[in-house]
Amino acid sequence: MATGIESELNALSIESLSFPHEKCKNIAEWHTQLDSLNPKPEFDYKLVKTMVFKPKAPKSETAPLIVLIALEDSQTSSATICKAVSVKEARLANEDAVTGALSVSTANVSPFSITSANAAAVKVVLDKSLLDYTGKLGVHPNDSAQTIFLSQLDLQKYLLKTEVEILEVDFKSEVYSATSSSAAGGSKSDAKGTPVQQKQSEKIEGAALIGITVDKEIDFPGWYQQVLTKGDMLDYYDVSGCYILKPWSYTVWERIQKWFDAKIKGIGVENCYFPMFVSSKVLEREKDHIEGFAPEVAWVTRAGSAELDEPIAIRPTSETVMYPYYAKWIRSHRDLPLRLNQWNSVVRWEFKHPQPFLRTREFLWQEGHTAHLTFDGANQEVLQILDFYAGVYEQLLAVPVIKGKKTDKERFAGGLFTTTCEGYIPTTGRGIQGATSHCLGQNFSKMFGITVEDPSAKEGEEKEKIFVWQNSWGLSTRVIGVMVMIHGDNKGLVLPPRVAGHQVVIVPCGITTKTSDSNREVLYRDITDIANKLTDAGIRVKADLRDSYSPGYKFNDWELKGVPLRLEYGPQDAKKRQVLSARRDTGDKAPISLDNLVESVQKLLEAIQLDMYQKAKQSFDANIETITDWSDFVPALNKKKVILMPFCLEESCEDDIKERSKRTELGEAEDAKAPSMGAKSLCRPFDQPKGIVLGHTKCLACGKDAKEYCLFGRSY
Amino acid sequence: MATGIESELNALSIESLSFPHEKCKNIAEWHTQLDSLNPKPEFDYKLVKTMVFKPKAPKSETAPLIVLIALEDSQTSSATICKAVSVKEARLANEDAVTGALSVSTANVSPFSITSANAAAVKVVLDKSLLDYTGKLGVHPNDSAQTIFLSQLDLQKYLLKTEVEILEVDFKSEVYSATSSSAAGGSKSDAKGTPVQQKQSEKIEGAALIGITVDKEIDFPGWYQQVLTKGDMLDYYDVSGCYILKPWSYTVWERIQKWFDAKIKGIGVENCYFPMFVSSKVLEREKDHIEGFAPEVAWVTRAGSAELDEPIAIRPTSETVMYPYYAKWIRSHRDLPLRLNQWNSVVRWEFKHPQPFLRTREFLWQEGHTAHLTFDGANQEVLQILDFYAGVYEQLLAVPVIKGKKTDKERFAGGLFTTTCEGYIPTTGRGIQGATSHCLGQNFSKMFGITVEDPSAKEGEEKEKIFVWQNSWGLSTRVIGVMVMIHGDNKGLVLPPRVAGHQVVIVPCGITTKTSDSNREVLYRDITDIANKLTDAGIRVKADLRDSYSPGYKFNDWELKGVPLRLEYGPQDAKKRQVLSARRDTGDKAPISLDNLVESVQKLLEAIQLDMYQKAKQSFDANIETITDWSDFVPALNKKKVILMPFCLEESCEDDIKERSKRTELGEAEDAKAPSMGAKSLCRPFDQPKGIVLGHTKCLACGKDAKEYCLFGRSY
Repeated sequence: MATGIESELNALSIESLSFPHEKCKNIAEWHTQLDSLNPKPEFDYKLVKTMVFKPKAPKSETAPLIVLIALEDSQTSSATICKAVSVKEARLANEDAVTGALSVSTANVSPFSITSANAAAVKVVLDKSLLDYTGKLGVHPNDSAQTIFLSQLDLQKYLLKTEVEILEVDFKSEVYSATSSSAAGGSKSDAKGTPVQQKQSEKIEGAALIGITVDKEIDFPGWYQQVLTKGDMLDYYDVSGCYILKPWSYTVWERIQKWFDAKIKGIGVENCYFPMFVSSKVLEREKDHIEGFAPEVAWVTRAGSAELDEPIAIRPTSETVMYPYYAKWIRSHRDLPLRLNQWNSVVRWEFKHPQPFLRTREFLWQEGHTAHLTFDGANQEVLQILDFYAGVYEQLLAVPVIKGKKTDKERFAGGLFTTTCEGYIPTTGRGIQGATSHCLGQNFSKMFGITVEDPSAKEGEEKEKIFVWQNSWGLSTRVIGVMVMIHGDNKGLVLPPRVAGHQVVIVPCGITTKTSDSNREVLYRDITDIANKLTDAGIRVKADLRDSYSPGYKFNDWELKGVPLRLEYGPQDAKKRQVLSARRDTGDKAPISLDNLVESVQKLLEAIQLDMYQKAKQSFDANIETITDWSDFVPALNKKKVILMPFCLEESCEDDIKERSKRTELGEAEDAKAPSMGAKSLCRPFDQPKGIVLGHTKCLACGKDAKEYCLFGRSY
Repeated sequence: MATGIESELNALSIESLSFPHEKCKNIAEWHTQLDSLNPKPEFDYKLVKTMVFKPKAPKSETAPLIVLIALEDSQTSSATICKAVSVKEARLANEDAVTGALSVSTANVSPFSITSANAAAVKVVLDKSLLDYTGKLGVHPNDSAQTIFLSQLDLQKYLLKTEVEILEVDFKSEVYSATSSSAAGGSKSDAKGTPVQQKQSEKIEGAALIGITVDKEIDFPGWYQQVLTKGDMLDYYDVSGCYILKPWSYTVWERIQKWFDAKIKGIGVENCYFPMFVSSKVLEREKDHIEGFAPEVAWVTRAGSAELDEPIAIRPTSETVMYPYYAKWIRSHRDLPLRLNQWNSVVRWEFKHPQPFLRTREFLWQEGHTAHLTFDGANQEVLQILDFYAGVYEQLLAVPVIKGKKTDKERFAGGLFTTTCEGYIPTTGRGIQGATSHCLGQNFSKMFGITVEDPSAKEGEEKEKIFVWQNSWGLSTRVIGVMVMIHGDNKGLVLPPRVAGHQVVIVPCGITTKTSDSNREVLYRDITDIANKLTDAGIRVKADLRDSYSPGYKFNDWELKGVPLRLEYGPQDAKKRQVLSARRDTGDKAPISLDNLVESVQKLLEAIQLDMYQKAKQSFDANIETITDWSDFVPALNKKKVILMPFCLEESCEDDIKERSKRTELGEAEDAKAPSMGAKSLCRPFDQPKGIVLGHTKCLACGKDAKEYCLFGRSY
């Protein structure tokens, strides 16, 4: 059955293949749809992304919208797009603008949305890679529930017929030949209706920023990738699942390390380092434990050109690495508690889709491993550490978490019980395990023979052997990912002041070509003085005195990197003895008198920290739905909520809940990576709502007696 | 030809085999000797170690010496020996004592040194493992240049004939069944002439310490192993070449990290983290460089049960890991200098004999990688970093080093030149490379295409591409090994105050069974107050209030661990308002008034730090021999010197020197691990002696023109 567009293509003698399917919101979903077709397209193809931008223009003008048509995997920076059409700035067009110009919704927009009738109201930026591509191109024919495949030549033929203005852009040379063109092209670029030429300009006045080009709410995975790479946190690496932590993210980790390290040293934990290699014999000693890790263990089998006699594993975690030595070192109750920690990296060669910070094959963490004489000693520490973990999230990262115990189904393999702090990502409505502190009980001590003689035995009595009580606890660089996902926005990162590399950036303003060198020097000297004053007060401050960038470029740059507070200082400010402050989290601007600068900045930073936490907390709280009837469970999930409900704590019921809550309707998917994921128990919160009457209140899922409120949600 | 002993054995109808060889000083040399025989012993055998101890006894008594006869690989603790013969403490007997009692020198002592004539003056502690051993036993017949092989039964037969008192001891149960016996047996042990029974005692008054049992000067490798394990720095691990860094050594590393990290951040270096994995393609990009590392690279080929498509290497160093990203990130001269550092571990799967800290398959280090616009920028930084490295050694570890440049032969593969700080281990007379700071020049930037456009080009001119100038520099946990080797003594570690985990330990003294609980409490409260006062002043102090150990035990324990300063405090001290101080480095004791305690302790710690450095410096200086004639070269080496001499700097001459300085006479070997090692160039010291007249002064080795003084030595 031919749609209107197919008729049009026929009229142009364009051959095309059409596949109907479910609606899809983004490229990933689109692939999922095509992959699930039967029969599915068996030829080489790539999908075409179509995005509409609105240039920033004076109110009086109506600038044409920009339609980007690009291969799905092209890195299309908005800066390049802006340069191609000679505008300073452009943002994703909103629904009204798109519908107004192209008569289709954003979700359904496609190259075919451009017609002879509306061609004058838009310009097309066409990705050169697309023109070089020899396979078929997949396009939605103004309807995300269908895909038409055609060649690039035919797509061009269609566009040319509409007489729309087309600017061909080589995004690759922009991205990859960067060394041959300095940082950004500059506003003097004369590119207009021709492929963008990279011109050199020593002075990059008003250079457009390579900013975030996808909307957090619309394409969350795409946004996350951009905010990390463009925010200078991370770079992708040529070994899959591994990422480079750049200084901007590593410094966040260093701040977390410093805080947490002082906390654990304060309770008597000592740092050490165990080798990254484990012999298979030792690795496999504890069966339940290794079962959980075996599929992900990386094995070294060769050194130089020599095959090793025995393959050697890289630690996925260090329980079995360390505990044989605990058995050796712990000779008496006087050696207890033994509390060791290491800051290291571990390797879990996951075959699931990797995600920066959240799921990576190598990751940095700390792992604490302690041994105690009594359960009470162990238990007390488990909770103490969990409080520290919650402190990392709440006090440093401004991320609210819920502390609780994992259900038996979700606890650490081989341990007695697991405590956890659970976070929540509002954009996807998914819960995320923040960090876990495990009480291992005596399982490992029995397996590895870690015993002491009972010190409470009376003189002359036979002394019983006591198997020690153990804990292990870990917090990884995942915390950084959670922080980014929660606070970041469409301008980039938003960093909480306590962990930001720079808490304050000072940008000189109001310097024009007319400003004399000496006046500029005075301004710069003032700024350096201000910076020094703040530095002396322990504030991490950066004076951005780069000559070759405009204030606007710098504003965008530091916003992208999430610096909490910007101070602007120009000749007018100098006269008034003030700086103009701009908060990254709210955008609020206010002058600050130089007379009480340090105090004001300190207060402002504290306010930002607290406000960021409060905002995230309100969002979390608003999305916890306490339900009283099972029928509300799935609808709440689909509204991106996490759910608190009376629960029987039984594993079979938990399995059942997961099964029953799998999404069946694609329209309700909020995240392509987990289009039909069922809900898991996140934790049994320590802070229980009132209302469970034992023997009376029933589990909402199975109708048996409820034991506790339990938090459920889709999760990472 | 039968020796005297062989005649005696014949008289007892004992069958034995005799092998003459070169003299040997220790077990390792002994094995080397036997292995080099032709024909060599083709049966199963173990060597017998014979050691003589002198019990600590009141001056009036002459206690019998203790002769330990044990299998070479038995772990024979002096504590166990003491218990077996019921003495509180025993030390290795000195030459006079041994010769006096047994009429042979220490080097030649053997079970056959015991005769009917001297049997009354000694007791034998006989290792049970030796009695269980079914192969042949190798024994020196009072002459280290000969080995006699006989069975354990025959050795017993010989000893019984002498009527010496024999105490059979099971060292294994002592060492390995530790969990069934609390920390140390206790002085109440009734073992006398029977295998030692492990008795429990809650109160370990006067327990003998498991101290160092080998002499640093006699068996340096054995001493090093003991001082590390018994000093609680390190434990051996079940993957060869890997070691566990226990908190006591890790804290030294943390102090070094903190100091160095602040230094490099001060010059603008930022920390980051790159993955530990490298694809083979990237690893092998720079040919010279990889050639140096290829034989030592560990390869991951499997994950879970799946073979990887491509083996993936674990980084041996990160040049090739990082530089592809430098090419991407450095887009203009404005991005320079780029200075990144990481604190990580690297893997070099060496097949040479591993040594804790000095040569390990995984090791912790920092690696800095920087890129500069000009050679001058790079060069300045290389030297700045070298100064920091020298600072780690000299200011923190109290280890003198000589700064200089490596010769072309010894520089980093792929680099332009290497600067180094070189240390010296007096006991072995070997030089040791301390840390290196490399100027890589433009070799890597050319290989990886790291370029910027020349910023000095005038407006309108074509801008030339400049390949950036790079440095890389690294300092590893090796520094800890060097520190231990230089400062440690026969009582254990000696730690410089600036890196010691505890700088001060306070031990309560003078508490007897008559001391009332309340008096003890007052004493403990005083000590806690003293400790708090010192802690508040930033001194790292430990109050050792363990009830179950005697002051003597604690003294030994903290001496073994190398705590720089001990403070003793008892009722008599309380009356005088003083503590008694004891320096670990010199043993000097002096009272300190409580009235100016903090200041005195601070001064004392500084004095210890400086004195330790001065002592090591004098030793280094005294062992640098500036020679003027080649004929002095090898003799100086054999006197454990390093040598400063005019040198032509030519690689062929350097090869030649190495060849010509190989040891040929075993008697002069000072270290079994390198019995015939030739001398290498250590460095071309920046601080050159005067006296080279270019075109006149000749290279002592080849007679060509000398360019510079160069430091040579046998080395690690």
